[in-house]
Amino acid sequence: MVKKTVKIIGIVNILLLWVVMPVFGQEQDTSQMLNSLRISIDTLWVLVAAFLVFFMNLGFAMVESGLCRAKNTVNILSKNFIVFAISSISFWALGWGLMFGNGSGFFGWDGLLFVTGADNSPAIGEAYQGAYAALNWTGVPLWAKFFFQLVFAGTAATIVSGAVAERIKFASFIAFSFILVAVMYPITGHWIWGGGWLQTLGMWDFAGSTVVHSVGGWAALAGVILLGPRMGKYNSEGSVRPIVGHNMSTVTLGGLVLWFGWFGFNPGSTMGVGDGSAIAHIAVTTNTAAATAVMGATFASWLREGKPELSMIINGALAGLVAITAPCAFVSVGSAAIIGFSAGILVVGAVSFFDQRKLDDPVGALSVHLVNGIFGTLAVGLFAEDGITGAATGNGLLLGGGFKLLISQLLGVISVGIFTFLIAFAVWFLIKQIIGLRVSRHEEIIGLDIGEHGAEAYAGFQIID
Amino acid sequence: MVKKTVKIIGIVNILLLWVVMPVFGQEQDTSQMLNSLRISIDTLWVLVAAFLVFFMNLGFAMVESGLCRAKNTVNILSKNFIVFAISSISFWALGWGLMFGNGSGFFGWDGLLFVTGADNSPAIGEAYQGAYAALNWTGVPLWAKFFFQLVFAGTAATIVSGAVAERIKFASFIAFSFILVAVMYPITGHWIWGGGWLQTLGMWDFAGSTVVHSVGGWAALAGVILLGPRMGKYNSEGSVRPIVGHNMSTVTLGGLVLWFGWFGFNPGSTMGVGDGSAIAHIAVTTNTAAATAVMGATFASWLREGKPELSMIINGALAGLVAITAPCAFVSVGSAAIIGFSAGILVVGAVSFFDQRKLDDPVGALSVHLVNGIFGTLAVGLFAEDGITGAATGNGLLLGGGFKLLISQLLGVISVGIFTFLIAFAVWFLIKQIIGLRVSRHEEIIGLDIGEHGAEAYAGFQIID
Amino acid sequence: MVKKTVKIIGIVNILLLWVVMPVFGQEQDTSQMLNSLRISIDTLWVLVAAFLVFFMNLGFAMVESGLCRAKNTVNILSKNFIVFAISSISFWALGWGLMFGNGSGFFGWDGLLFVTGADNSPAIGEAYQGAYAALNWTGVPLWAKFFFQLVFAGTAATIVSGAVAERIKFASFIAFSFILVAVMYPITGHWIWGGGWLQTLGMWDFAGSTVVHSVGGWAALAGVILLGPRMGKYNSEGSVRPIVGHNMSTVTLGGLVLWFGWFGFNPGSTMGVGDGSAIAHIAVTTNTAAATAVMGATFASWLREGKPELSMIINGALAGLVAITAPCAFVSVGSAAIIGFSAGILVVGAVSFFDQRKLDDPVGALSVHLVNGIFGTLAVGLFAEDGITGAATGNGLLLGGGFKLLISQLLGVISVGIFTFLIAFAVWFLIKQIIGLRVSRHEEIIGLDIGEHGAEAYAGFQIID
Repeated sequence: MVKKTVKIIGIVNILLLWVVMPVFGQEQDTSQMLNSLRISIDTLWVLVAAFLVFFMNLGFAMVESGLCRAKNTVNILSKNFIVFAISSISFWALGWGLMFGNGSGFFGWDGLLFVTGADNSPAIGEAYQGAYAALNWTGVPLWAKFFFQLVFAGTAATIVSGAVAERIKFASFIAFSFILVAVMYPITGHWIWGGGWLQTLGMWDFAGSTVVHSVGGWAALAGVILLGPRMGKYNSEGSVRPIVGHNMSTVTLGGLVLWFGWFGFNPGSTMGVGDGSAIAHIAVTTNTAAATAVMGATFASWLREGKPELSMIINGALAGLVAITAPCAFVSVGSAAIIGFSAGILVVGAVSFFDQRKLDDPVGALSVHLVNGIFGTLAVGLFAEDGITGAATGNGLLLGGGFKLLISQLLGVISVGIFTFLIAFAVWFLIKQIIGLRVSRHEEIIGLDIGEHGAEAYAGFQIID
Repeated sequence: MVKKTVKIIGIVNILLLWVVMPVFGQEQDTSQMLNSLRISIDTLWVLVAAFLVFFMNLGFAMVESGLCRAKNTVNILSKNFIVFAISSISFWALGWGLMFGNGSGFFGWDGLLFVTGADNSPAIGEAYQGAYAALNWTGVPLWAKFFFQLVFAGTAATIVSGAVAERIKFASFIAFSFILVAVMYPITGHWIWGGGWLQTLGMWDFAGSTVVHSVGGWAALAGVILLGPRMGKYNSEGSVRPIVGHNMSTVTLGGLVLWFGWFGFNPGSTMGVGDGSAIAHIAVTTNTAAATAVMGATFASWLREGKPELSMIINGALAGLVAITAPCAFVSVGSAAIIGFSAGILVVGAVSFFDQRKLDDPVGALSVHLVNGIFGTLAVGLFAEDGITGAATGNGLLLGGGFKLLISQLLGVISVGIFTFLIAFAVWFLIKQIIGLRVSRHEEIIGLDIGEHGAEAYAGFQIID
Repeated sequence: MVKKTVKIIGIVNILLLWVVMPVFGQEQDTSQMLNSLRISIDTLWVLVAAFLVFFMNLGFAMVESGLCRAKNTVNILSKNFIVFAISSISFWALGWGLMFGNGSGFFGWDGLLFVTGADNSPAIGEAYQGAYAALNWTGVPLWAKFFFQLVFAGTAATIVSGAVAERIKFASFIAFSFILVAVMYPITGHWIWGGGWLQTLGMWDFAGSTVVHSVGGWAALAGVILLGPRMGKYNSEGSVRPIVGHNMSTVTLGGLVLWFGWFGFNPGSTMGVGDGSAIAHIAVTTNTAAATAVMGATFASWLREGKPELSMIINGALAGLVAITAPCAFVSVGSAAIIGFSAGILVVGAVSFFDQRKLDDPVGALSVHLVNGIFGTLAVGLFAEDGITGAATGNGLLLGGGFKLLISQLLGVISVGIFTFLIAFAVWFLIKQIIGLRVSRHEEIIGLDIGEHGAEAYAGFQIID
């Protein structure tokens, strides 16, 4: 802190603001200082938002471990803790360059490895000269761009963790996560956010219903299929045995942490505070969709089960948040309420849908992230409204804009889905051949905590699984 | 993210900052840009503060559920999770307009429903023209004002949850919360923050000791009276059976989350960063009061019980935070220390006070929010010091200002108390007639988790209640 | 909120920005407003960062309690909750003045008590006139400086809590914490951050690997020696009995909260946003070191135990964070990766090292904070690279700068270590004589929760220790 470094920075500030000013021409100088302040504010916002998104790792860890059994808790926590470390390394080493490097419509290659490309950020627009031109619209330093994008990449990886829980080998999950963040996530990300072909075609995904959530969902789906269901989940006659979570306190904690973190995810995706009005609008659409989704899921589960189920209430909130992620900047608050309510109902139905197909997803990750990632992306095509925050999406179908936008969105959903599912399937398959995907039958019974980590989560507590 | 939208916003920024500038007159332009930067900074602060206040929902959920029994955990978590969803909808639909719409001294009506009034925010002062003039002193976009106020409204509702825990019907709580946030909270809020009669009379409540905390407390008190105590809490001879909490880890977690969130609650209530000095001062008074309150409660409980009780230490911190909420911007750090220490002692005494009257409040919400909400509001009249942060409250009684300010504060406490208690009593009473307030005797014994939600919080754990 | 105060502030803003401007000379005014905006932004950043560091109290509380046994949970939570309250009071009363008051190279004395010295912050550099000149390089209000420094002081105290857990008397811990934050921490802090002799000699510790972490570690080490190991930890033949933690969910939660909070700790130590590039760089070095440290600790524990241990994965992350704290602003991202990976391996080895010496540290605080606090401080001397963020450290040994910097760092490590260890030992010893350090044998067996607090953490749960 009282570092000479910073002292020097401090002194430079003084010079800039108080000494230099009267010396040089006033006009030139004021303009420079205004720009410097703008960069400071934008950087501050991008970093704070990134911290909030980082914090979502805690939310996922708590929701996913809490919804599983006590005997697999250490394993799930370990997966969710290490996955962000792996993402940090693989996105730095390769992912960033593939996603945002200048290149073709399919992937980037300039400054490919370790974020080493030329770059004169925070210069923007035409003034930007460097390897990562796709983000030249935001005037923040390169490492701020990188860090913000990194925490998004980490989110995609952590989504997978829940769906494959309670049966996957620790090493296999690590291997898949590395490849997901290094290669798969960045490529489809490039299509939509990195200047790629879907972006050119006019597909809109403001904060990543498709780029982050459905990509995580497709990758998880492939894993769920190859892994098969947990022992005892589906019996031979086709009936479903509920395997209930062991800690609803941590699940609720996780749900609220995720809702909190989403205020970095969606409003932060402006990557600048130039338009405060847009950020505030996005905060409100995001929150409103979460709120109405809670109501939708509560009513749906109340109607169906006769009682409002807490895990559905929480997954409802997450479903609403996923669904509003793509359209949050393009729709009115009223539309956000409708999108959220629909997402809440949708997630309750989706849980049954996957169970009927014996796709065993212990935490509902597919219902939340895949189904509502798709729904949210399409919702742009239905509810988008020109001029909401200065966006130029064109109006969606329900606002008189015709099918044009909806078709672009659908094209994005389908192409990203096919690509990610196929590659993920291949990667999971290879891992299965090389190190295997699933723990032994014995290990699954005694729990992965003992099997994979030689530890238990709640030493001393009497627990019957 | 790399949305064309945002690209367009980005390009507009470039134009504003680099292109337009030399074209138009320098003076006009610099002034516009300075104002635009100011709006950006203020919006950033208001939103970040709002996110922190939102996060307090987690704190309340953890404190309240942890201080109750394991068998009622899912129910309490469900209540605390859904209550913010309900608040989001009811404050948007009606509450905001009643509270901040232009109207009479008693309630507002301009732009009443769904925040649809005319509004040219972020224009401020005389330049503001719109339906919500009471907040024309803060230069942030309308949705930022709304979101910040919404998270405060949600806090009032969540306070009620703890006091009525372990015996209230889930549906009845939902109904009451909706009405509280849609109608009751906004009306007294209008009196003090919406340009109403108490504001005109010179009552000061910086961040809501009365507006938020004692209102939540009065509403809870009415519910506690109508509900009656939990089974077995008070036996026939009048002795009190302690019903201890089931998870002090989550209680402590919740307490620290609330302390953290209060840094949004109090400093954020400046709703702008124009006076950084004031914000820093408020952060320090807030923190100091919490710290001395911890000491006060620790000593009081150590003296009385012979041992320092953790639940008292934590409720002490919360008591100090509630008490400093009204005066945080008007008192010195030294006064804050005194206010906090007093609050810490007060909360320990208040818990006994309510128990002696057989007012069963499982989490101490009345002692924390009602008693210290009142105390904090009156503390303004005792400790206020002109010029602390540019405020013009006049000095309080102990700083030579006489009784004038104290009387205004007392008037506010009494009028808000009477109004809120009576209306809340009526609303609880009506709900009791229509759907009933209390779960069945059987359900209370087996736990509301099974009864209301068909689930348990800690499946697999051996628990004896 | 809609306080007249704030109204007045608001109106002043209008005047400043819209009314005054055309009246007075344009040049003078624009410069003033630019400066005012800069102060706002810097204050916002310093406070938000301080809130994040405050939040680390939750992280420590959860990591430390979770890694101990259920029967001591209330005691550990109580210690970690009250320690920040104590720090808030003692740093305000005395610590701040000793650390940052103008004085000698060994401690400060201007404005010694209760932050009452003259001060014209946010004036900076030569323009600053006041009692706390060592922080004149940051242009934020006095209370912002105080609050930011307070949360750092609190961190040092909370580190001690874990190492002495499961056997220390509650009152003794309180007494030691008060003295640590009032006297010991500020004195060595003055040497390095308060303009003292080590700062003059050219020792660099950007965010406190030594000032905060190793100081906490040395203080803990003295306590661990005087307290002796927990009953049953080391048997007579010298073998070590593992005493495992009771709640890995809260440990993981705590680990992620700490990682999150570190984004305030390190990037926030710029205490201003003048150089956004530096802040973003620091965020990335911090995160990268944590990530590679997770990998280092995972591999090390996997190799040694045959299985990746969750508590090591988490302590690995913390070790990396501690190690990067001193060098985060002076090293490249690549160097950060190396530092982190080394820290991860180091922490696994250090845990064995201390166990072999029968130094019983239930949570690994010595391995994390002492060992890696030292390592991180020395890493500056190895990896520092001039010009990374405008710092002028000179290059470290591995970047061709020779031994000069490394020797200064080593001198800092040794002198702070000797001073802190000796004083801490004396203070612990005095406390031992006066009130005793250790709970009774009986109390240790039944648990400190019952013994010190008359309560249990998980009432109703069946627990066997």
